[in-house]
Amino acid sequence: MNQIDAMDRLINEFSRLPGVGNKTAQRYAYFLLTQSEQEVKDFASAMVDAKEQIHYCKICGNFTDKDICSTCAKPNKQPIICVVKEPKDVSALEKVRDFGGSYHVLHGVINPLENKGPNDINIRSLLNRINNEQIKEVIVATNPDVEGEATALYIANLLKPLGVKVSRLAQGIAMGSELEYTDALTLSKALSSRTEM
Amino acid sequence: MNQIDAMDRLINEFSRLPGVGNKTAQRYAYFLLTQSEQEVKDFASAMVDAKEQIHYCKICGNFTDKDICSTCAKPNKQPIICVVKEPKDVSALEKVRDFGGSYHVLHGVINPLENKGPNDINIRSLLNRINNEQIKEVIVATNPDVEGEATALYIANLLKPLGVKVSRLAQGIAMGSELEYTDALTLSKALSSRTEM
Repeated sequence: MNQIDAMDRLINEFSRLPGVGNKTAQRYAYFLLTQSEQEVKDFASAMVDAKEQIHYCKICGNFTDKDICSTCAKPNKQPIICVVKEPKDVSALEKVRDFGGSYHVLHGVINPLENKGPNDINIRSLLNRINNEQIKEVIVATNPDVEGEATALYIANLLKPLGVKVSRLAQGIAMGSELEYTDALTLSKALSSRTEM
Repeated sequence: MNQIDAMDRLINEFSRLPGVGNKTAQRYAYFLLTQSEQEVKDFASAMVDAKEQIHYCKICGNFTDKDICSTCAKPNKQPIICVVKEPKDVSALEKVRDFGGSYHVLHGVINPLENKGPNDINIRSLLNRINNEQIKEVIVATNPDVEGEATALYIANLLKPLGVKVSRLAQGIAMGSELEYTDALTLSKALSSRTEM
């Protein structure tokens, strides 16, 4: 093999990215070498800058480059908090644009198999927010899988005694999907949660 | 949208990698933010170091961090040159380990649709090497597609008058593949190039 240390190091770094194997890492590395030195330096500094400037919002736990993220800093928010598992879920929900409340990022879900209990995720600060921000409703938007459901249930049990309304994203068939290809579990959920026309 | 400039910049840089769309770039960026500051700095410096240290070998055009790559610097090489399209093709061939000659990287193939002629790829220096290194055979290992075949033909016509043997990698059915799933073109090639047992 052509032993070039700098190349091996770069391929190794790329292969640590999620879902990237050795072949893809090699492809990325070779691509990078075809770029100009300035372009590579820009890429490298974008990484370091992002890591240095971005941290968690003190209130909601989402990524921000300020003390408090732009959503939390917004005035006249609706007293609704949408609870999500990860920062990228916030990006997904923000695309909808018709939610006027704020978010709360758990940074994980309760998962006994991975030894992750309620204290290992960002739930405690959610309780403080309920009082501080006079929240009326909490929408639990964790994923509709076993861990997501369990976490939603835990949060609901925790918040209901505080007199706050707790809701969950509707589950059913996706828009534009076909019944034929919808799995049985989803169909069953869609049937039992059917809405009157 | 949560406008974080540093984040947008990072996602934008990642999405320039080959085959990476916005979704994947976002995934990479979020992953990077979960890493420690030191890890991110290591990644960034691996990029810059690779770009600064690695350049083309003066002889064969492959990547190297010295003047002349390790393959070209090896003594007692067989007088055979294997011509490939890109540096990553050298990595692929080096894995075979039973080739004792050297390589020549074209950095592209002849492609009229992209306005790439023989002068736009690294062919001229190949001619010099034939004399300087007393080469007996040139194996043209460009890909078996239209542009690869055209480039192979061009090189063959160029080198044959110099009295050097020009060969091409065998084409046929791949080891471990199944006839049922082999495309007609490959099967036809495998039939016409059948070998006696």
